[in-house]
Parts: sequence; C-alpha cells; structure tokens
Amino acid sequence: MYTKSELEQFVKQAKQYARYGKVADYIPALGKANPNDLSIAIYMPDGNVIDAGDTTHKVTLQSISKIIALALVLMDRGEQEVFRKVGMEPTGDPFNSIAKLEEVQPAKPLNPMINAGALAVTHMIAGASVTERFERLLQFVRKLAGNPTITYSEEVAQSEFETAFLNRSLCYFLKQHGIINEDVEELMDLYTKQCAIEMTCDDLARIGLVFAMDGRDPFTGEQIMPLDVARICKTFMVTCGMYNASGEFAIKIGIPAKSGVSGGILAAVPGRCGIGIFGPALDEKGNSITGMKLLELLSKTYSLSIF
Amino acid sequence: MYTKSELEQFVKQAKQYARYGKVADYIPALGKANPNDLSIAIYMPDGNVIDAGDTTHKVTLQSISKIIALALVLMDRGEQEVFRKVGMEPTGDPFNSIAKLEEVQPAKPLNPMINAGALAVTHMIAGASVTERFERLLQFVRKLAGNPTITYSEEVAQSEFETAFLNRSLCYFLKQHGIINEDVEELMDLYTKQCAIEMTCDDLARIGLVFAMDGRDPFTGEQIMPLDVARICKTFMVTCGMYNASGEFAIKIGIPAKSGVSGGILAAVPGRCGIGIFGPALDEKGNSITGMKLLELLSKTYSLSIF
Amino acid sequence: MYTKSELEQFVKQAKQYARYGKVADYIPALGKANPNDLSIAIYMPDGNVIDAGDTTHKVTLQSISKIIALALVLMDRGEQEVFRKVGMEPTGDPFNSIAKLEEVQPAKPLNPMINAGALAVTHMIAGASVTERFERLLQFVRKLAGNPTITYSEEVAQSEFETAFLNRSLCYFLKQHGIINEDVEELMDLYTKQCAIEMTCDDLARIGLVFAMDGRDPFTGEQIMPLDVARICKTFMVTCGMYNASGEFAIKIGIPAKSGVSGGILAAVPGRCGIGIFGPALDEKGNSITGMKLLELLSKTYSLSIF
Amino acid sequence: MYTKSELEQFVKQAKQYARYGKVADYIPALGKANPNDLSIAIYMPDGNVIDAGDTTHKVTLQSISKIIALALVLMDRGEQEVFRKVGMEPTGDPFNSIAKLEEVQPAKPLNPMINAGALAVTHMIAGASVTERFERLLQFVRKLAGNPTITYSEEVAQSEFETAFLNRSLCYFLKQHGIINEDVEELMDLYTKQCAIEMTCDDLARIGLVFAMDGRDPFTGEQIMPLDVARICKTFMVTCGMYNASGEFAIKIGIPAKSGVSGGILAAVPGRCGIGIFGPALDEKGNSITGMKLLELLSKTYSLSIF
Repeated sequence: MYTKSELEQFVKQAKQYARYGKVADYIPALGKANPNDLSIAIYMPDGNVIDAGDTTHKVTLQSISKIIALALVLMDRGEQEVFRKVGMEPTGDPFNSIAKLEEVQPAKPLNPMINAGALAVTHMIAGASVTERFERLLQFVRKLAGNPTITYSEEVAQSEFETAFLNRSLCYFLKQHGIINEDVEELMDLYTKQCAIEMTCDDLARIGLVFAMDGRDPFTGEQIMPLDVARICKTFMVTCGMYNASGEFAIKIGIPAKSGVSGGILAAVPGRCGIGIFGPALDEKGNSITGMKLLELLSKTYSLSIF
Repeated sequence: MYTKSELEQFVKQAKQYARYGKVADYIPALGKANPNDLSIAIYMPDGNVIDAGDTTHKVTLQSISKIIALALVLMDRGEQEVFRKVGMEPTGDPFNSIAKLEEVQPAKPLNPMINAGALAVTHMIAGASVTERFERLLQFVRKLAGNPTITYSEEVAQSEFETAFLNRSLCYFLKQHGIINEDVEELMDLYTKQCAIEMTCDDLARIGLVFAMDGRDPFTGEQIMPLDVARICKTFMVTCGMYNASGEFAIKIGIPAKSGVSGGILAAVPGRCGIGIFGPALDEKGNSITGMKLLELLSKTYSLSIF
Repeated sequence: MYTKSELEQFVKQAKQYARYGKVADYIPALGKANPNDLSIAIYMPDGNVIDAGDTTHKVTLQSISKIIALALVLMDRGEQEVFRKVGMEPTGDPFNSIAKLEEVQPAKPLNPMINAGALAVTHMIAGASVTERFERLLQFVRKLAGNPTITYSEEVAQSEFETAFLNRSLCYFLKQHGIINEDVEELMDLYTKQCAIEMTCDDLARIGLVFAMDGRDPFTGEQIMPLDVARICKTFMVTCGMYNASGEFAIKIGIPAKSGVSGGILAAVPGRCGIGIFGPALDEKGNSITGMKLLELLSKTYSLSIF
Repeated sequence: MYTKSELEQFVKQAKQYARYGKVADYIPALGKANPNDLSIAIYMPDGNVIDAGDTTHKVTLQSISKIIALALVLMDRGEQEVFRKVGMEPTGDPFNSIAKLEEVQPAKPLNPMINAGALAVTHMIAGASVTERFERLLQFVRKLAGNPTITYSEEVAQSEFETAFLNRSLCYFLKQHGIINEDVEELMDLYTKQCAIEMTCDDLARIGLVFAMDGRDPFTGEQIMPLDVARICKTFMVTCGMYNASGEFAIKIGIPAKSGVSGGILAAVPGRCGIGIFGPALDEKGNSITGMKLLELLSKTYSLSIF
C-alpha cells in the first residue's frame, strides 16, 4: 500500500506549510520546538510500519492525552457514570471556553475534548492517590503503545503546573457545580503530568492502531479496551478531536484524530491503520499545520475518509 | 440480512417510546400527526427492500431537506463558494440560534444544518426565479428517490410561510451581513416550499441509499452527485444532522442521518443501505423519539456504526 | 451662570477632538455631515438661552427619538403595560445585539434604549394607522420643543427604510416571541420616520429642559408629561442613554443624556437646564466625540453631575 | 422630616413582603438569619438619627463591602490605574457571571460591582501583606462609620473561604489574563474577610451619609474621601449596585444603594441622608425584599429619587 518514498515525498510537500504556522510558546519547553520538524509513522494491522522524518523525536501528548484518559475512565467507571459528568455534544467554541458552562443547566462540560470536560474525565481516573492514578494511566499508555519505557517530562509538567491558571479557573468552576470534588491542586498535578507524557510518533501510531482495530492490539491479540470504548473514542475524535476545526477536518480529511498543542496528532483509520505525527508548527486553532496537510494528502491519495 | 419480521419486531419495541415524545404543533398540518405512527423502509444496493409499518404515509421533509439542498448547491456552486457563506463546524447551540452569528467575525452561519446556514444554502440554489429554483430542487429530489411523482404540500408550505418569523429574523440578519442578498420574502417562499416537499419513508430510504453509495444510484448506475458531495453531506449528517443531539447520536448509533420536525429521518449507512423512517413523536430536541430508538436497535443488532 | 463667550471657548476646545472621530456613513445623508461641525444650546428654566456654533443646522434624532417615544408610550399605555414588553436593566452589549434576547426567558428586550427595546416601544405608540401614530408622535415632539414647524427628513427615512435589515431581523425576532404583533414593514415605516425627525440643537435643548423640569414646560407652565414619566426617562438616560459607554459617561459626566448616530445629544440637568448638541464626529461606540467632550467641560466647570 | 413612628409604620408594611423572600443559605452562618427581621437607621447631616427595628443586630457586609473597597482603592491607586483593570459599564448578567469576561477583549471585568471586578479591586488594596491590607480596609471602614469597634466575623470569613469555589474560578481567570498577579489563596483570604466585616444598620447609615455628603463626615468635618471618589461610588451604586435588578431599582426608587446577600443595604441620598437597612429575606436576584420595599416607601413619600 503506502511506500516509504511516497511518504517522504508527502512529508516534503507538507513541510512547505510550516511557514504559515508557529510553535506553541506559552511554556518554554514547547517554545524550543523547531517548526520545520515533521515526522510520521503508520502502523498496519499486519505489523508493517512505514515512517518518514526523525521518528526518534519525542513529543508530549498534551490534548492527545484526553482521548486516552477518556478510554481509561470509560473502563474504570462505565459509560453511564462518565456521561453524567460530561456531555457528548461538539461545540463551535474554543477548547478553553468557560462561557458554555454557564449557559447549560445543570452546568456540565459539553464534551470530554474541551478542557473543562477533560478535567472532569481526569478527575474520574480511579486510584487512591494522584501517584496511583497517574501510574495506572501511564501503564495503560505503555500497554497501548507496546512500549514499557514511556514516561513523562517533569520539566513540561512542572512548567504547566505553574502557569495553568485557566485550567484552575475551570476546575473551580466545575467544583462549584459539583462536577468534581477533589482538591484542585491535586487534580492539576495529575492533569499536567498526564499532558506531559511523552512518546515518539511511532508510539502514537501504534496507539492509533489499537483504536483503529476496535480496541484490540493486533500484535499481541489482546483486547486492551472493549469495542464500545474504542468506538466512543473514535466518535469524539471525529466530532471534536481537532478543537474548533473538527468540522472542517471531518469534511476535508474524514479520519478520526486527536491533536495536541505540542504538534502531535494521533489518528485511527478504522480497520486499516494507526497514524502518529509530530509537526510543531500550529495554525491559529492550535492544530499542527503540517500534520493536517500530511493527513490530507494521505486521505486524498488512499481514500481514508470514513464518510 | 434483515428480515421483515425482525423489523416489525423492532418497530413494535420502538413504538413503546412514543409516549415520551410529542408531535410538532407549531403549524396545524404537523399537529394532526398521530404520535403512534412509525414506519421504516431499508433499501439495499442489490435492490432488496424491506419495510414495516404504514409505508404509504407521506411526510414533509422539513429539516431533512437541508441535506438535499446542500448537495444540489455544492454541485451548483462548488465547495469553495459554498463554504465562503457557511461554515463547517458543529455547534452545541439549538438549530434556530442567532447568538453565535453575532460572536463570529465575520458573521457566518456555523454550518449548513442550523437554520441560518440552511437559509444561506437555499439562497445559493441556482436559477432565474423562485419557480425555476424550486423546480430544479424538486427534479433533483425526484431523481434521487427515483420517483417522478414527488411534489410538495401547499398547505404546509403556506402555513410555514405565514408563521416563519424566526427564519425571517435570521434572513435579515444574514442580509445585514452580506451572506444573502435576495428579497427575503422570495427566499422564504422557496425555503418553505423546500421544507414542504413530501414523500414516503420508502422514498427517503432510496435517497439515503444514494448517499450511502457515494452518490451513485445502484439501480440506474447513474452518478447523481459526485463522490465528494455525497461524502461532505454524510459528514454533516454525523457532526450536526440530529440538531444538538448529534454528538450523542453519533456515540450511541453512529449512522449518518438527518432528521426533521415532521418526524422523518433519512439515514445512510456507507456502502450498506439507505434507511427512511417516519415517526412523528419528537423528543425535546426535535428528533423522532421512536425513529431514534429504531435506529439504535438496528445499529446495535447489525453493527451499523461507522466508528 | 454660563456666558456665551465661555461656551464658545468650550466649543473651540472640544472641536479639537473631532479628528479622533468619524461621521456615520451607513446611509448617504449622514455621510455628508462635516465632522468639524459642533453647535450647542442651553435652555434655562427662566427663559435664558445661550448657544454657540451654527445653531440653525438641523440634525435627525436617530436614537434620541427612543427617549421621546418612550415618554409618549408611557403616557399611552402606562408603566405596567410598557414594562411587560421591555425590561429596565442596562446591558454591557452593543445597542443592536440580538444575543441577549435568546438567553432571557421569556425573550424580552433588556431595556428601551437598545434597538430591540425601542422597536417594542414604537410598536406601542397608540393610533389607528402608521400615519396617525406618527402624527401623534410628531405633535408630541413639537409640543416638547415649543416648535410647530418640526418635521422629518423624507430622504433619511427612505434611506434607512431601505437598508434597515438588522432592525427587521430584530422585529421578526420580537414577533416570533409575541412582543410585537403588527406588520413588520409598517413598524419599520413608523420607526424610520421617527428616527428621521429633524430639529436644531436649540429644539433639542428645549426638549431637554422639559425633562429637566420633571415634565413641565417652564415657558407655558403646561405639564406636558407626568413627573413619573420624566423621571423614568431620565433614569434610562443615565443607565443606558449613551449606548455601551453609558457607565463611563455616568462616571465622568453624570448628566442624564441620550445620543444618536447623527451626532446629536439631548441632555437634561435636573432642575437646572436642558442642553442640545450637534457634533457628528462619532467615537467607536457611536456617541458624538466632540459633544461628549463639551458636556464633560460643562459638567466639570459647573458641577452638573447628579451624583 | 421623617418621624420615628412613621418609620415604624413603614417597617411594619415592608415586613409583610418577607414571606416572598428567603435568606441566603450557602453558608450556615447566613442561613441562621430570621427572614422576618427588618431594621433601619437614617442619618441626617445635622446629626439627627431615626431608626426602627432591632438596630443592635449586626450584619456582615458581603457585597456592600465592594463599594467601600472601591473607594479605598480609588484613593490608593487613582482613577486611571483602577479603570485599567476594571470597566465602568453596567451589565444585564448575574453578579457571578464569567461569560462576559471571555467575550470582551482584553478580558476585563465589566464593572467593580460584579464579583470579578470586586476581586480585581480588592487585589489593588495597598499594603505589604494580607494582614496589613485588611487592617487598612478595616481602619477605613471604622473611620467612615465613626465606630472604632467594628471588626469581622471569623466564622463567616472561614465558611466563605472554604466554599468560595466560584470566586476562586474568577480569580484564576483574572490571573490568566493578567488582571491580578497575587497568590489566589491570599486574595481569597483578604476578600472573604472583607465580605465578613460586620456592623449594625446604624453603622451602615453613617457610612451612607459620608457618601451622601460627597465624602465629608458632617460630624467631624473631615473629608474622608475626595468628592470625585464619593461621586464615582454613588454612580456605580445607581448603575450596578443592586445586582441585575439595578435598572429596575433606579427606575422605581432612584437612590444610590448597594446591597449584600446578608440582607444589608447601604444607601446614600445625595445631600440629604445616609440609610442603613438589615432585612435578610432576599428576592431571587439576591436583594433584601423587605429592604427594597422600605426604600420604595421612603422614596415615594419623601421624593428621594435623584432623577
């Protein structure tokens, strides 16, 4: 199907768009990224992998972690409990908006991909302590990626912990309305660590493959998450995985995907492949501009749209 | 695959939910509907049809017409021109909201499934007069359904024309912002006729099949609309086809579908079948409560979710 | 108290700010105004008048008419009926906003100074026809100004009638929610004529004096409107008379006043004087930039703030 | 002017409305209040005081403290610096709304009477530590009331500190946008103490008198705050002193006033008197229902409206 040389050609084409984007710089660690970096890995169910660019480069998950935490929490708590605390509707508002929370009665984040919803999800990760809950999440990530060495960036976690005023604002709003009831600083500790988990685009691709295969790891044969959980996650990836450009992404590319401000994208083409991308040049909505271009080229060339 | 007796069993099950909904009553013609009515037709690519309930009953398209007008306009004007006037993003707001139009700069309806966006789409139907534009739309509908006898309900069109104050409000708002530039009463004439086009669930199912088959009518072999147009329409059906319950519908059912307040649902299961439903008991978001239950039973039983 | 030479000095000072503003140009008739024009008249209860600038220049009332129509309607219908259809609360939103109407249940314009509220007020002017209702309003204006020659600009009324899409949008929104029930085109006819009533700043000042004297015309001794009506109008002038700069105006100047996009300002200093100003250079909120400066100089010099 | 027996008659009348209100109960200390309590004191510039009801009862200031902190901060920082961080416009939104902060660019609380604005004001109280800043505020309050024994309720401060999640949410939002830069817990410590300052309605009335007399204490002759500061405070009392019922209060009563959820009201009739009221039965907007009735009776009987 895909060849490495073709992929390298696509990467070259997509890189030309790097100049229209810029790297996130709200914390120093992200600001150091090179906007011209672009790497991709594609995992097939048969074990084939093709990649291009510097695939040893590690990227922090940031918002990509939202979809993984959601999967874990759906397994920990069940659909019903999760959706009592967070909605299922996409929104045209930016990811960090608080306004919608006020309008909706009872106050409940519209979906688990906006920050307010993601904080409610992370709040629900089971465990006796932040340490235990984070350890459980990390083990889950390692199993999904088939890589026991994955860990998190203490520097990034620390930086975000120190500056995440808006997320604290959202947490206290959620606490006021009974959506969360733990100590906000503890939740922020857990959440910033979750966002700072780092991996290569190769790892991302393999996680994407598990979602693509309905929760089953084709290499080990293990059903890591139930089919329903994988399906729910892919649905959210389509309706709200790319911030408030999700609708446009669904129209133009049509692949379930989740992006992060670090420039990472995790994509899952149902039944066909998992894709991991790292391209830190972001457009004004916070998505990797080169990564989206790359996915568009792949989707158009190989008809990857689910629609 | 599906058998008629199984379908009849599902209809019986779904009908039990009729009591939790109520029929639209903002115009007399809709208010006369019987909330216990429920009929369904499923068209397969091989020509097989199975149905249940009173499939001779005609239903006006209402919001279902939005997706058909969009297909026509995408063919008339091309993607680029269409998306200059209307966005691609889903929204957590109700279908008739005007608030979002104010916040977005430049003012532009968020997507073609909310009323403001649908009015902008209908505005773009090509033709020298309302008569000609409506005739073109009607011919398109007839071709999609393979039924040259389809027409519209003058009574419903007239009733809606006389009471559509909110849609006029949206039209003038769009006119103020240069999204539309025709006479508002003419646009309302066209739009209310479009919404009043009526057909059986059998017709709906056959239209759904054309979308499911990427724009090609499997019976005639004709490509009625380009693949890209069919794909865009199915994407909007997923992200915003069921009003502000679209997210939940995508999670629980996962079939591209568009509903109308008359109780109709048009659904397209990619590559597999088209589904038409008529069940006028609505939930509080305006979707057929029995129709959604029926689709849920089908989706769960036959794994119809695209995710 | 005030001397003409002092007033002329203030006008000269205030004129220097004309360069920071610009004239309204959404209709040609307003666009022809000279941003450097600035005239003022002050009427005292004892009959003394002082003025400066070209006081023969006529200005259309525009939003200033909202306060006069409100006075008439309060007399026509009584407080209770009026405030069933329009609220009393100021708002931080722009004058032409529709968003707030959606959020409030039942939909009701927040106050009579925003366009939606003003349209609801004009709707309530008593009379058997638009002609009769406008005639009644005009007679009321003439009596307030003690000037039977006041009429309206047909050119301005016609221009605004042809382009008032946003006001039509608001009207249909109000009609949908039962706030108004007349034909929208008729209401627009009446409203655009109301806004096009024209007079000199001398006339404006004399109307301001009637409000300042609690509804009594000190020249004729006639109580033109009840004390309560005059008081309500002055209150709205303070809380929302200067669009969404009303709060700042109250803090810095503290005089009940109502502005219009034509550059006119009608002000009423309780018990002391009426002030009329014409200065068409507007700031970004739609208030006369030179007129506000002039009022600030007067307020500071003569302690005119009511606070 | 006013007689004690008349005042007692008014109190009796107003008390009948207590049954339509209910006491705040979000913290236990407030929930213990008796809804039928109603006391009032009126201070005249000549030293005359009349009162009715149990004037020894102490009430915590709650939102009333916002106007006093504003006066102090205007003296500490000057108008210009204060209004760089907080706006001057009234709003139709509830006092604790966060939505407006998002829409306005740059994010800035609309006025100092909503919680977000009040927090920004308290943030600006000068002093090297929370202890010193609170001490300065307390001394200012004592001087205004001519009562060196005034202090705060530790129980109320503590309760509010423990449950003020929404205010913490607002603080972090303000911190994200650079409006405040101190430690949120320290600011909350200061703010909850400020809100918990307690006094009798006699004290409230005497503070009201200082505002009424343009900042001068008529008993000592001392100008406690500059005329401009007193005037700004009275303006905010009119435009946004009674939550989102301020517009209606201005229309119906027309007296600069500030209320708190404890049921206290501080009012200042310019040049004439200061009024302090305690009546803990609140209406649904958070204002003392009996206190407002009492002020309405006084305003109507003695023509106290400033309009």
